[in-house]
Amino acid sequence: MNISKFVTPEIIFGKYSIKQAGEACLRLGAKKVLIVSDQGVANAGWLEKVMKHCSDSNLPFATFTDVTINPKDTEVIDGCRTYLHNECDAIIGVGGGSVLDVAKAIAILATNGGSICDYEGIDKIDFPLPPLLMIMTTAGSGSEVSQFSVIVDSKRKKKMTIISKSLVPDIAIVDPMTLSTKDSSLTAITGMDVLTHAIESYVSIAATPLTDVQAKNALNLVSAYLRPSVASKTNEEAKEAMAMASLQAGLAFSNAILGAAHAISHAIGGNYSLSHGEINAILLPYVMDFNFIAAPKRFTEIAECMGIDTRTLTQREAGNAAISFVKELSVDIGIPKQLQKIDISNELINSISQKALEDACMITNPRDMNLEQVKTLLKNVL
Amino acid sequence: MNISKFVTPEIIFGKYSIKQAGEACLRLGAKKVLIVSDQGVANAGWLEKVMKHCSDSNLPFATFTDVTINPKDTEVIDGCRTYLHNECDAIIGVGGGSVLDVAKAIAILATNGGSICDYEGIDKIDFPLPPLLMIMTTAGSGSEVSQFSVIVDSKRKKKMTIISKSLVPDIAIVDPMTLSTKDSSLTAITGMDVLTHAIESYVSIAATPLTDVQAKNALNLVSAYLRPSVASKTNEEAKEAMAMASLQAGLAFSNAILGAAHAISHAIGGNYSLSHGEINAILLPYVMDFNFIAAPKRFTEIAECMGIDTRTLTQREAGNAAISFVKELSVDIGIPKQLQKIDISNELINSISQKALEDACMITNPRDMNLEQVKTLLKNVL
Repeated sequence: MNISKFVTPEIIFGKYSIKQAGEACLRLGAKKVLIVSDQGVANAGWLEKVMKHCSDSNLPFATFTDVTINPKDTEVIDGCRTYLHNECDAIIGVGGGSVLDVAKAIAILATNGGSICDYEGIDKIDFPLPPLLMIMTTAGSGSEVSQFSVIVDSKRKKKMTIISKSLVPDIAIVDPMTLSTKDSSLTAITGMDVLTHAIESYVSIAATPLTDVQAKNALNLVSAYLRPSVASKTNEEAKEAMAMASLQAGLAFSNAILGAAHAISHAIGGNYSLSHGEINAILLPYVMDFNFIAAPKRFTEIAECMGIDTRTLTQREAGNAAISFVKELSVDIGIPKQLQKIDISNELINSISQKALEDACMITNPRDMNLEQVKTLLKNVL
Repeated sequence: MNISKFVTPEIIFGKYSIKQAGEACLRLGAKKVLIVSDQGVANAGWLEKVMKHCSDSNLPFATFTDVTINPKDTEVIDGCRTYLHNECDAIIGVGGGSVLDVAKAIAILATNGGSICDYEGIDKIDFPLPPLLMIMTTAGSGSEVSQFSVIVDSKRKKKMTIISKSLVPDIAIVDPMTLSTKDSSLTAITGMDVLTHAIESYVSIAATPLTDVQAKNALNLVSAYLRPSVASKTNEEAKEAMAMASLQAGLAFSNAILGAAHAISHAIGGNYSLSHGEINAILLPYVMDFNFIAAPKRFTEIAECMGIDTRTLTQREAGNAAISFVKELSVDIGIPKQLQKIDISNELINSISQKALEDACMITNPRDMNLEQVKTLLKNVL
């Protein structure tokens, strides 16, 4: 085993933990905080709650809520302007992956300047970021604990993966009650993102014993609780389990990185305004099938975490059972089998495939992948 | 579930990771570092290695190596003098639990002043500590990742448990190669400490899903690898597994705290110069038996982590099997069944039992314990 590094924020987990937002931010030394969010989170009432908890702690704040799905570099610039104009010195993100990724990207620009494109790739951030408190409201992106921020370069129509230890928030607040306002479709999509994080990080070439325990536990929880979580907004046991699954999968992939599903998903998401979780869900079984020969034993372990009895199965059979499990889960919770509404030219397939190969997540995929293989895989899901 | 907090340092794990000591310390902003160690670690060559890695990184240092087993408040004062006299601004601990606990306690005095006794208990540290880099050379105390420091108050002959988030090091380096210089007896004793951490944190009333995964994985690893690790200095697979077990048990107990075995062990260790790990190992089966009725299901899960097939067992039988497992493991690796060389009066039993009840670790023991019950348990092991 090589030398492995494992970084996490301080984690505050539990029902109603959102109440600690103001106090936690004060602990980080904040004098005035920028609260980053989006309209959906605001409509669900969570933004207002965070504002109230800051007020209760006598912590002044400004807000920035112009974040969209697959957020763009231009949104980061606008957010950074709001941060500087209001003389903030700390950032709270309250929302799903898009919001938290923008909150992190604003932090980069706030103290490092330049264009957000300058930071694409691994370890490009030189100066310390302002204190970051991330409150996640989807289970989900894992951004509340990860060293990732993914932002669309609007000129190149490319999702840029920014990876840096500086992006690990200081504090992550995970309050399962925030999941009670998600509709079933969003619960399904974000839940499949969690599953993809767990599986890709478990077979990543950068996996370590520390990331493995997190990935396996996340896999256990998603396998048991995603269906009931999609079925009911008020199933608190399922919400709590999915919040924990998201967190643990986040800890796993933040430190073990991801693989081909995310690399291709980022490349597609840069061109089409499709949900990241849905693209991942559709790609995942194909990527698992492609990757199987790189790590047959790991795929047997994945099947076991899903609750499959592998004792009488060959490794290939166990791998297939795991792939079938993912497909059946997708069907049960209403994920389509193919990418919808995409009219795609051969030229665009070429360009997306090329971008996928250049994505930082491709580096840790357990099986080498060439352009033709990406294109073949891509054609399967169109 | 209540709101739970989980704090960890940045972790650097792997063979030869000790080489990163200087560079990691520079990253923390150190200009001159105090390296805390002891004679055993110096004799084994690890102190010299760390000094070399600091020199290689052009990081000036001073050293303090006057740390003993069950380290005392007076050693902390001496270490702090060395820190201040040499105008250090960061601390490296390289050694086992005693060394790392002293390194942390020096850090407390360096920026908070007063007497180390002022900080006994939970959350008594007001001011930020200097950057802390902990390099563990036993598997072990878990101090490299924990928010604990245990120091003997030489006047009261009492081990003081100091618990504070400030004590979580900034960076922990865990290099399994450092375990290759431990003799079999130290490997056995420190390994049983790991087992005690895993079991006590798993049944602690402050256990959370995040600590549970760490505790269970540590339990798996100790159950499988402690015997071979004691058997051979050069079994690298076993050393790596025990280093990981120590780290994970440390993450578990740092965040879930411990129980009666540690509370009583601290009380004994304040009066007698016996090894902490050995006292724990001897107490553990008795504490498990006492605690069983508080968490029968958890004891079944503990048995399963040990590799025991519990499917045909009642909860009581599974609990007994787990207790037997601990006893057999102790016998196999040469741990005595009773505390040796202690000539103890009834008065002293009273005083030790009283101190045990006051120890911070007793708060999270799953079963309430009164003075008579501590005394009865104590008499079993004398």
